[in-house]
Amino acid sequence: MTSVAAYAAPAAKAPLERTTIERRPVGENDVRIEIAYAGICHSDIHQVNEGWGEAIFPMVPGHEIAGVVAEVGPGVTRYAVGDRVGVGCFVDSCRECEYCRKGLEQYCTSGMIGTYNALDSNGEPTYGGYSQQIVVDEAYVLRIPDALPLDAAAPLLCAGITTYSPLRYWNAGPGSKVAVVGMGGLGHMGVQLARAMGAEVTVLSQSLRKKDDGLRLGADRYFATSDPETFTELAGAFDIVLSTVSAPLDMSAYLGLLKTDGVLANVGAPEEPVSVNLFALMGGRKKIAGSLIGGIAETQEMLDFCGEHGITAEIELIRADEVNTAYERVTSSDVRYRFVIDTATI
Amino acid sequence: MTSVAAYAAPAAKAPLERTTIERRPVGENDVRIEIAYAGICHSDIHQVNEGWGEAIFPMVPGHEIAGVVAEVGPGVTRYAVGDRVGVGCFVDSCRECEYCRKGLEQYCTSGMIGTYNALDSNGEPTYGGYSQQIVVDEAYVLRIPDALPLDAAAPLLCAGITTYSPLRYWNAGPGSKVAVVGMGGLGHMGVQLARAMGAEVTVLSQSLRKKDDGLRLGADRYFATSDPETFTELAGAFDIVLSTVSAPLDMSAYLGLLKTDGVLANVGAPEEPVSVNLFALMGGRKKIAGSLIGGIAETQEMLDFCGEHGITAEIELIRADEVNTAYERVTSSDVRYRFVIDTATI
Repeated sequence: MTSVAAYAAPAAKAPLERTTIERRPVGENDVRIEIAYAGICHSDIHQVNEGWGEAIFPMVPGHEIAGVVAEVGPGVTRYAVGDRVGVGCFVDSCRECEYCRKGLEQYCTSGMIGTYNALDSNGEPTYGGYSQQIVVDEAYVLRIPDALPLDAAAPLLCAGITTYSPLRYWNAGPGSKVAVVGMGGLGHMGVQLARAMGAEVTVLSQSLRKKDDGLRLGADRYFATSDPETFTELAGAFDIVLSTVSAPLDMSAYLGLLKTDGVLANVGAPEEPVSVNLFALMGGRKKIAGSLIGGIAETQEMLDFCGEHGITAEIELIRADEVNTAYERVTSSDVRYRFVIDTATI
Repeated sequence: MTSVAAYAAPAAKAPLERTTIERRPVGENDVRIEIAYAGICHSDIHQVNEGWGEAIFPMVPGHEIAGVVAEVGPGVTRYAVGDRVGVGCFVDSCRECEYCRKGLEQYCTSGMIGTYNALDSNGEPTYGGYSQQIVVDEAYVLRIPDALPLDAAAPLLCAGITTYSPLRYWNAGPGSKVAVVGMGGLGHMGVQLARAMGAEVTVLSQSLRKKDDGLRLGADRYFATSDPETFTELAGAFDIVLSTVSAPLDMSAYLGLLKTDGVLANVGAPEEPVSVNLFALMGGRKKIAGSLIGGIAETQEMLDFCGEHGITAEIELIRADEVNTAYERVTSSDVRYRFVIDTATI
């Protein structure tokens, strides 16, 4: 075992503080990664606050991990010391069920093993990226293209794949019209990715406060959802409405923005259920669809796509001791657009 | 104009009574149909009761129409006197929008013109199938295969296409597992159609009261939704859950029955919105989808499919003066499985 410095929440809703955790020895197929950067995802905060159910403490959050390979086990074939790598939302799965075999490990029948707030196959709790090192089976490690800086690439491991996967699944591309709802950590990735896929992109944000950023990142149009006129003007305009917001939306209003056969793809995770008028789905054969991150192969595809198109997150790089302030700012939507912890400061 | 005997609701929620309506002269492309049978659809009752919004009275309901061509206009090319034909839920649409051009007239941008409770392009109210004749443009008339009796074929025009279209759209077929929720007018069609498409079919009904019918019509399995054990036993079992019920369902419970990438296709039309937990969609990339009848081409495809497979509705044939009693029985789910009016008795 190796002692590693980390930032952890000692209990539910408690502020994070510096601590020490143990990482397992490097096994046959393991890669030991010297973590350089860890993004702060809104779901880190949900989990520290037990907003999604009972959690494991102490908790070291972080599933947007970027770093460099420091050691490899004897069976490792894909990575070598010095490689630039990342780890996303899960570090293992059953590898045998129909979904694992299809590369949809995120939907593993036995449940994927989360990068933190989960129990590993050895029964020990997993600890995430707010730490200086992590040991992960190479099958769950991603390669970060040389073209991308590690700090701004870290958020691709969750925010990037979360928006990339539904855009691909629902065929965003030349000729399609995509609305991205919410201009936050997920939304600002969705705008860039949809644009790079060739779609026409519209941002629907509460206000026009971030309009300049939205247009700079590739949006063709930008509308405020606080203006009821928006829903009249854009009625029936989109093939895909990608909702990235964590508050419960007025689903019927957003369904009204879809063309026939359109999809409201939801990647936001409101803690409360939403109300849906089924008539709004029937007229126009519309769909509300969920999507959860992506599998390992698709996550690598997304990273390579970002490498080709020069896409990264827009980040605010912080020291580890700023993490609690960062949590407050994320909660009040005061970040452009992702906090990333410089783990050298832990 | 031609005077035609009909059954009409004189006002919202009023009992239907015998009356006389005028049908337009047969125009260039029109077909005059001697109606033989008209099915009673639950939506007839919703509309008579103004449950779906303000309606036009007097109302002659009926959009499951089967009969014989009695006269054709000079421009008519597809039909001749004596042909066995049907009319479904709409009798016209704009014919120019992208959906009409794609054969998705039911999603016409200007709105399809309903067979009743609508205004025709000449501004006159349309009157439905509870009458002795109807005049319809041939482009909106369907051919009923010789293999099918007219009375039991009538309900195919709504109940048949309503279930056929989403089953086709979501690729029901060999290897797929379909659950049909609700064993009523729509559900008993869904069971037969899904089975004929080659899917494995399970009925989910409130009780086991109609189990024998379900198995006879082609279901492989039959479960009661009143038994909570059903939802445990069938968790993750289906590719398609086709909901035909008009009461608001516990969507999260039914989403739990889907496999990853499965779809909850809804053709029921509850008057109240339903509550959806978005997490139930995310885990497994699931979808809730609407579907509304089908276009003209697909409706003909469905009729031909039913002709090949010998599929019709199970009906209770009634006299016109029994229609009000029939409405009461439909409302209390006391019909196996569709009432059809013998319009010779009007």
